[in-house]
Amino acid sequence: MLPVVVVHGGAGLVPKERSEKSTMGVCSAAQAAYLILQGGGSSMDAVVEAVTQMENNPTFNAGCGSLLNIKGEVEMDAIMMDGRTLASGAVSAVRNIANPVQLARLVMDKTSHVCLTAEGASQFARSMGVAEVPQESLITEYSRMRWKKNLAPDANPVECQMGRMGTVGAVAVDVEGNVACATSTGGLSNKMEGRVGDTPCIGSGGYADNLSGAVSTTGDGETIMKVVLARLILFHMEQGQSAEAASDLGLACLKSRVEGLGGVVTVDPRGNWAARFTTENMSWAAAQRGTLHYGLYSGEHLTRSI
Amino acid sequence: MLPVVVVHGGAGLVPKERSEKSTMGVCSAAQAAYLILQGGGSSMDAVVEAVTQMENNPTFNAGCGSLLNIKGEVEMDAIMMDGRTLASGAVSAVRNIANPVQLARLVMDKTSHVCLTAEGASQFARSMGVAEVPQESLITEYSRMRWKKNLAPDANPVECQMGRMGTVGAVAVDVEGNVACATSTGGLSNKMEGRVGDTPCIGSGGYADNLSGAVSTTGDGETIMKVVLARLILFHMEQGQSAEAASDLGLACLKSRVEGLGGVVTVDPRGNWAARFTTENMSWAAAQRGTLHYGLYSGEHLTRSI
Repeated sequence: MLPVVVVHGGAGLVPKERSEKSTMGVCSAAQAAYLILQGGGSSMDAVVEAVTQMENNPTFNAGCGSLLNIKGEVEMDAIMMDGRTLASGAVSAVRNIANPVQLARLVMDKTSHVCLTAEGASQFARSMGVAEVPQESLITEYSRMRWKKNLAPDANPVECQMGRMGTVGAVAVDVEGNVACATSTGGLSNKMEGRVGDTPCIGSGGYADNLSGAVSTTGDGETIMKVVLARLILFHMEQGQSAEAASDLGLACLKSRVEGLGGVVTVDPRGNWAARFTTENMSWAAAQRGTLHYGLYSGEHLTRSI
Repeated sequence: MLPVVVVHGGAGLVPKERSEKSTMGVCSAAQAAYLILQGGGSSMDAVVEAVTQMENNPTFNAGCGSLLNIKGEVEMDAIMMDGRTLASGAVSAVRNIANPVQLARLVMDKTSHVCLTAEGASQFARSMGVAEVPQESLITEYSRMRWKKNLAPDANPVECQMGRMGTVGAVAVDVEGNVACATSTGGLSNKMEGRVGDTPCIGSGGYADNLSGAVSTTGDGETIMKVVLARLILFHMEQGQSAEAASDLGLACLKSRVEGLGGVVTVDPRGNWAARFTTENMSWAAAQRGTLHYGLYSGEHLTRSI
């Protein structure tokens, strides 16, 4: 059953013209991470690689391709967590870097803190020699179009809903049975400056614990925070629920308690996994035992050999 | 049993010369909040009042009296949560305001977001007409002394430990059985700029749910985040543990999993409450049925009529 990696490219309403790129992107990220795991690499390295690939892919709302805040600027959040030690690192509202997930890892590895925000996160990035990139390099035609449409006084709610699509993430178990998670996002389109969502909030955007498993979440961030979704799912697993049943219980609670929609990828330390969502779509892919599993629509589960 | 309010003035090592002021401060905050509850006020109003009083009291590491970051500046975090709806508001790394807890409430009441950080939080404060205060008005002789001592190359670890004292918080249940929590802090002395601790992270710095209860946490923030302490305690309560037993189980997990020390105040919706800590000290006070309960040392439980 080991190793295994499961990635998502964001829960929401994926426009038809973006569905193929989205599926290709998660499949490619899962395969890259799986290669690391097959080579004996750690689950931490695997999830960072998967998320880095999706941050670099303009299709996704993270890194290059991030949705824009109300001022048309890019502010990104990311988190990662090591299930062996519960060590974790996060950044919120960070600007001008290509790979927030890698900065989150540096926060974990190189500081005594767990989370750095805004200008403090940028200063830390500079001190670590992380390359500063111009904001323009992170903005796509699509993200600017979404921003402009949402600014319009007559913005269509269904259209706006598409702007809520987002966040990428991954969970993995390596051959030693260590679990890890990572999540990265540009956040909500047209969000207020300084808005921090669920992604960098431990227990909400992700959680990893070798005793139970790992979860990465996506969807309606403000509601995900209110139920601390990732930790909630792992509590269900601690009580004997499978990765799939626990994910569904967590998403059902999200809906019933705070009317939230979202999606998750979940693993347990033995390599059982789930990719579940209550939104229209979530692009996801899993790699295990030489097979790539993937899907985008509810109930869709395709496979092919790696 | 209702109403009830329980407040803490921070878990840590309270220097002797500050112990009386600290006890007086929590007692006074609890009484002010209790007055609101007795008048039929909501638990939300009560916890904001208690925390506001402690933010305004230079004895505590929140608002005026906040410990300073590595640059000698004040950056504050706060959260609040309404157990009726799970609605919540938070601010992180916010500067130049007197009462971060009130800004957290405005985030909850006046935006579609849950958390605003740094300059974005300041902009929101200005847009709401919140008075900007000079940083100097938030800095005390004590906080500056702690900062200078920690800067010294030969800084004594025990002395530094005193700098970790901090965070104020409150939980309450009003006559209608609604629970709420609020927490506010200046964070760790000599922290990196932009460091965000457990306080503004939902589930870590606090959590409130009418179905189980409310918790506000204090102590070693980075470790509290790793176990999502407030939510963890409420999971134990959902499984039938008392407020006191659940608090102790949560704090034991904090210690065994990540070597963290801390303290919590906890209530259930029926008005059972606990104030528990694994640090040397935690100033705390509770008001219920005309009696004020308070303490500072392990095992200490004093009472007097209100």
